Amino acid sequence: MPVYKYDVTMTCSGCSGAVTRVLTKLEGVKNFDVSLETQKVTVESDSLSEQEILEKIQKTGKAAKVAA
Amino acid sequence: MPVYKYDVTMTCSGCSGAVTRVLTKLEGVKNFDVSLETQKVTVESDSLSEQEILEKIQKTGKAAKVAA
Repeated sequence: MPVYKYDVTMTCSGCSGAVTRVLTKLEGVKNFDVSLETQKVTVESDSLSEQEILEKIQKTGKAAKVAA
Repeated sequence: MPVYKYDVTMTCSGCSGAVTRVLTKLEGVKNFDVSLETQKVTVESDSLSEQEILEKIQKTGKAAKVAA
């Protein structure tokens, strides 16, 4: 299953918690990890595209991009 | 124009900045205020309902409800 990685600006546990809540509710996500420490979000999905997941993360209002 | 008030859990300026970015982009919002200090969000709109605005705020992943 593809694993997608994103850089997401999160500055407190409220920020990372918000991203976590959105990914928990997002249908099609099999596994994910949100790291406040590294500012990285990793998402496993076989039904959503890299871009679709990025747009959902951006709906939180956080600055987010696909990780290089 | 109606003014809608919400209680939104925000714990840092990254949190309030995220809510600010979402409301800035939301069509139909004439004015708004996001207060990290009071945990209140105030939105003026004559085209969006109280519930529609609440749902947009909730899409940020923050705990949010209509203020009593």
